[in-house]
Amino acid sequence: MINWRIEEIGFDPEQITTNGNKFLVGNGYLGIRGTLQEYEKTEFPAINLAGIYDQVGDAWREPLNAPNGLYTYVTFNDKQFCLPMDMPADHSISLNYRHGIFTRDTSWYCDGGAITVNAERFASMDEKHLIVMKYSFQSEIDGELQIHTGIDGEVWDINGPHYDEMLLSVENNIAKAIGITHESKDQVIVCESIHTNFTYVEQIITEGRKLIRCLNISAKAGKTYQLYKYISVYTSKDGMDFDLQACNLVSNSKYLGYLEVRNKHIAVWEEKWSVSEVFIEGDDASMEALNYSTYHLHCIAPRHADSLSIAARGLSGQTYKGAVFWDTEMFMLDFFLFTEPAVAKTLLKYRIDTLEGAKKKAKHYGYEGAFYAWESQEGGYDACSDYNVTDVFTGRQMRTYFKDKQIHISAAVVYGIMRYVDYTGNYDLLTEGGIEVILECANFYYDLLVKKVHLERYELHDVIGPDEYHERVNNNAYTNRMAKYTIESAIRAIKLLPKLDENVQSKVREQYKLDMLLILYQDVNSNLYIPKPGSETGIIEQFDGYEKLEEVGLEELRGRILHEKEYWGGAYGIASHTKIIKQADVVTMLNLFSGEYSDEVLLKNWEYYEPRTEHGSSLSACMYAMLACKCNMPEKAFPLFLKSATSDLSGHGKQWAGLIYIGGTHPASSGGAYMTAVEGFAGIHHENGKLVARPVLPKNWSRLRCKVYYQGELHQVEITQDQAKISKINN
Amino acid sequence: MINWRIEEIGFDPEQITTNGNKFLVGNGYLGIRGTLQEYEKTEFPAINLAGIYDQVGDAWREPLNAPNGLYTYVTFNDKQFCLPMDMPADHSISLNYRHGIFTRDTSWYCDGGAITVNAERFASMDEKHLIVMKYSFQSEIDGELQIHTGIDGEVWDINGPHYDEMLLSVENNIAKAIGITHESKDQVIVCESIHTNFTYVEQIITEGRKLIRCLNISAKAGKTYQLYKYISVYTSKDGMDFDLQACNLVSNSKYLGYLEVRNKHIAVWEEKWSVSEVFIEGDDASMEALNYSTYHLHCIAPRHADSLSIAARGLSGQTYKGAVFWDTEMFMLDFFLFTEPAVAKTLLKYRIDTLEGAKKKAKHYGYEGAFYAWESQEGGYDACSDYNVTDVFTGRQMRTYFKDKQIHISAAVVYGIMRYVDYTGNYDLLTEGGIEVILECANFYYDLLVKKVHLERYELHDVIGPDEYHERVNNNAYTNRMAKYTIESAIRAIKLLPKLDENVQSKVREQYKLDMLLILYQDVNSNLYIPKPGSETGIIEQFDGYEKLEEVGLEELRGRILHEKEYWGGAYGIASHTKIIKQADVVTMLNLFSGEYSDEVLLKNWEYYEPRTEHGSSLSACMYAMLACKCNMPEKAFPLFLKSATSDLSGHGKQWAGLIYIGGTHPASSGGAYMTAVEGFAGIHHENGKLVARPVLPKNWSRLRCKVYYQGELHQVEITQDQAKISKINN
Repeated sequence: MINWRIEEIGFDPEQITTNGNKFLVGNGYLGIRGTLQEYEKTEFPAINLAGIYDQVGDAWREPLNAPNGLYTYVTFNDKQFCLPMDMPADHSISLNYRHGIFTRDTSWYCDGGAITVNAERFASMDEKHLIVMKYSFQSEIDGELQIHTGIDGEVWDINGPHYDEMLLSVENNIAKAIGITHESKDQVIVCESIHTNFTYVEQIITEGRKLIRCLNISAKAGKTYQLYKYISVYTSKDGMDFDLQACNLVSNSKYLGYLEVRNKHIAVWEEKWSVSEVFIEGDDASMEALNYSTYHLHCIAPRHADSLSIAARGLSGQTYKGAVFWDTEMFMLDFFLFTEPAVAKTLLKYRIDTLEGAKKKAKHYGYEGAFYAWESQEGGYDACSDYNVTDVFTGRQMRTYFKDKQIHISAAVVYGIMRYVDYTGNYDLLTEGGIEVILECANFYYDLLVKKVHLERYELHDVIGPDEYHERVNNNAYTNRMAKYTIESAIRAIKLLPKLDENVQSKVREQYKLDMLLILYQDVNSNLYIPKPGSETGIIEQFDGYEKLEEVGLEELRGRILHEKEYWGGAYGIASHTKIIKQADVVTMLNLFSGEYSDEVLLKNWEYYEPRTEHGSSLSACMYAMLACKCNMPEKAFPLFLKSATSDLSGHGKQWAGLIYIGGTHPASSGGAYMTAVEGFAGIHHENGKLVARPVLPKNWSRLRCKVYYQGELHQVEITQDQAKISKINN
Repeated sequence: MINWRIEEIGFDPEQITTNGNKFLVGNGYLGIRGTLQEYEKTEFPAINLAGIYDQVGDAWREPLNAPNGLYTYVTFNDKQFCLPMDMPADHSISLNYRHGIFTRDTSWYCDGGAITVNAERFASMDEKHLIVMKYSFQSEIDGELQIHTGIDGEVWDINGPHYDEMLLSVENNIAKAIGITHESKDQVIVCESIHTNFTYVEQIITEGRKLIRCLNISAKAGKTYQLYKYISVYTSKDGMDFDLQACNLVSNSKYLGYLEVRNKHIAVWEEKWSVSEVFIEGDDASMEALNYSTYHLHCIAPRHADSLSIAARGLSGQTYKGAVFWDTEMFMLDFFLFTEPAVAKTLLKYRIDTLEGAKKKAKHYGYEGAFYAWESQEGGYDACSDYNVTDVFTGRQMRTYFKDKQIHISAAVVYGIMRYVDYTGNYDLLTEGGIEVILECANFYYDLLVKKVHLERYELHDVIGPDEYHERVNNNAYTNRMAKYTIESAIRAIKLLPKLDENVQSKVREQYKLDMLLILYQDVNSNLYIPKPGSETGIIEQFDGYEKLEEVGLEELRGRILHEKEYWGGAYGIASHTKIIKQADVVTMLNLFSGEYSDEVLLKNWEYYEPRTEHGSSLSACMYAMLACKCNMPEKAFPLFLKSATSDLSGHGKQWAGLIYIGGTHPASSGGAYMTAVEGFAGIHHENGKLVARPVLPKNWSRLRCKVYYQGELHQVEITQDQAKISKINN
């Protein structure tokens, strides 16, 4: 049994940023960083919103943080008690990650006695627009207490300020802040209402963009003063009467009362865990880390929408521009496909609905078809800059090619759609535009193919593969294979067409010359070059010329660093002309297409590339872990599994890329941990239309139990060291 | 009339390096920097040798400097008088560039009177291994004079020391130094003998690698003490008995005497000028600068060899590794073709004889055919490094692509050969291996061609054009057109084959499937993509995507410089992502193929690219100048002509590329000045087998007179503002 709780005892200012990620709560509509009520900008508090963005000047476009309706602090006998300025006598924070409830308990000494603040809060899983907090005060001595609580409109932004105006008001005892964004004049509204178990004299104060209620109380020693806050968050994208709804939600929730709202919230979480909890017997630490990981995926699942995806740093802030990367399809999708296919569909619908953006991007570069955004925001707008890294030596921007050369992104989208088709057995996504996505992505790769004039071998030149340290390479094995996969999928989709709705059939037939495409695709399928394992070495070259690069050990390479934040890639990075790679590349390909290679080739490449991999991306460890499982090396997979599962627990992920802050949660790593446990160790996969297991449990795992959906039906999976059982659950 | 003399009066230590280039003398076998007799390493003296190289460790391979047999200084009354340490009372140096004679005149004050040193020296044009010097001393007071003279074996090297051993000896009054090289144990021998008009007591001293005669004289006021030195230089590459020859040459020359040796030397120069002198009436400065430029070409012409080329910095030192670049074929060749076709042949034979090296280089990169060295040393060895520039900010080496991507070099070789054929009317070069060179270069380009799978348009990707600031571009207009030129030349060569010697015919037919090649080449000729002038703008895009680069003024760009020696190109250089280019690129193409474009297109592109060109290479100005002439803008051409013609006179050429010293003479610029005068202003070119003129003289040039060879016959050219006359000279 695990206790579903993490905590940190004592106050360490160095941990403020990391804890903001580690103790995050969220409900898919919004995420609340694990920061304290009294924190202001400098401590990076955020109520981060999904799917709404703003840009100021030339700086990066990024998602919005809402005005902070949780803002609260106390003064006692005219002294203010706020972290991190006023060092506490005692302090702890905790997160119940079964139910997404964050608490803080802090006491300070004041005039010879202790005063204590306890608080808990959550983002309602039952009502996406609602945040609720209980805030309590106790003192060992009598004194004059002031509780300052309200809305802090002075939000933390990386490239802000995003609100040109912040309208503050109080009406019918509801405090309200409306921020009006710079780019599109969108509105973000936060309403707040309070309830207390004590009487007070209230003053309403506005200080800049802060709207604060000051509650004055003559506090008695030993008495607990409880404040309940009901906070609603809406934006103008939530429909016409968002303002009214925001007010009503606060009133209604207050009427229901804290306990009732809390119970409904917990009930939704319990429902989620009833399917998604993974039991690991014999290794509580792994079970904790794994379920803590999937907790984060639950917090950011866009259940409130039909068509929305997940940002690379979830809802933990504005880093990575709140943009959607290949992370979603390649690393997070399986968790939802296995435990909540409706969410998987929502994620993929986002790609279908941004097809126009992808076609526009392709056109911009002079290509046919659909070139999906490397960093996708609304409408498929590519937020990726041509200058994504700052040179630490000159302070200049460095031209990077993530946006224009990382063409494997389109294949990832196709991979997600086909995986949805295979695991759900459902063609709804194909019918709802998926088939066009597949054909446009296939046409994109077809258009990019080049060949030597005198050879019938089709190649892809000048790309960046998953290993971003090596830019502008030819015939990256992963990219070429994924392009082929896209072509294969297009052929499959054309052949599936007769099974789809007739209207869809005729629409697609009208739009595309399918007979001709089929001929072209089959030709590509025969001639597209996929680098083969070396006849003697068994090693697949990551790209043309990789073999000729400098052979150097990772530690020796680290010894060449001149500046701790210098970029390892680009044209002159320390890794660029060596064999050291950032993350799984050939290994990712082998993991996806393991059935096409001998066990020997899988093992040899794992052993060749692993010591040459920095694992500088949180996407790397799980691919190595899963391939290790396929090579029957669970003990080699295990530390890599733990690395994925604890990336947000440990807070050891990279915080900086060049001079850019990139901290936040790592949902791809969380998804990778889930995949490693369920698809790696338990070996769950489908073969010929059946769900099967090929388990290789770590030696101290006596049993793994979980539930997974397959073809629309929930299955119980039970794996021990010598048995694997998959059985349908009859509801 | 011009006086064929340049001088510098007064002593400026800052000018030592520049003067080393500006006052150079040479005879093709060796070049002697314009440095003073007493200079040591720190002042960069050099007797630089043609075509012999050495490498020490990982540093660049570079040509050898011979032990300095000119080394001489005086002491008077026990005081030493050497520049730059002992500031002189008077000082001047001069160069008679009609006859390649360098003089120095220096006086110092000593014990109340002046002492004076005068010296002149030359590298014999009549005997390539011979250097001769006359050194005179006078004093206003009596005193004890010591003339120290001998051989300084402590030679200046950039990446040396190249001599593992330096053997010093004196035998039969001949001083001798033999340096044994590191890499190949080659020997460089310098012999020296002296003659004086005074008696002396001699001591022989060796100090380290210096072998010095110390001549002790009780000097009388007013008397002139004259020392004559005869110095021979040979290497072990000069035949078996090079040692004996070196001794004999010194003895024989001494026997002939200074005046006789000097007269024979002058006679050869006069013979050269009798053909190559260009008369410009109305503008002495231009005439001086132009003939000074061609003086430098004479100094480095490899008349002593059958197959040897010219280094990019001539014989002025070890910069640019003493390597042969495209400079020879594209910028220097025409001067020799027009005035001394035998030298042109020698230059091109070097390329024929290094075909194997070019094939080896192609093979190394996995290509067919011949990929000539970007920086060619003996055997066609490519001395260019993969890391050619040092990052001034990090001190790290930067990966550059000059060697592997500047594929236009092979076309330059073909261009040179075909130009030789056209101007001489002689097929000897084709017979002697030129035809194989052309076919192998054509095969090289054929192998490099890529196409989109679905388009019949052949392209060249991932290249560097003449403008090196933009690396790894697709469809560089110059490169594509030159590749097409190569293919056209191959077709022409195949069709010429029946006119050649039958043995050659059968050898070529045996080696190549000519019928098949002809079909392939004709296909390439039809489909190779040459970027066209924009339909509205008339501008030819330098490469795919150039139009999208940042538009910025040259001065604004200079304002972004953070370090005076930073490299402007590479992946992140200040010019790399802007439209600013290093040197003529599209303009070079238009100059070579002007007949294929309308006058309007020529003009529009000149006007578009000129303000965007840094002219950061000495190869740039003349291409703009020549195209300006074709656009009938002699006044725009004129300052660019002067820039080319004075590049060594002014010493304003770039001295540094990153942290690498690149100073030296600029023979390509000299050749460019000649081309501008004769082919630009005088408009000399051939049309349908006839030599014709289309002159556009600058307004202050009343007359231009020169002689040029065409089809084996010497022609007199006489151009005035309103007349052009070309007539055969009957010998």
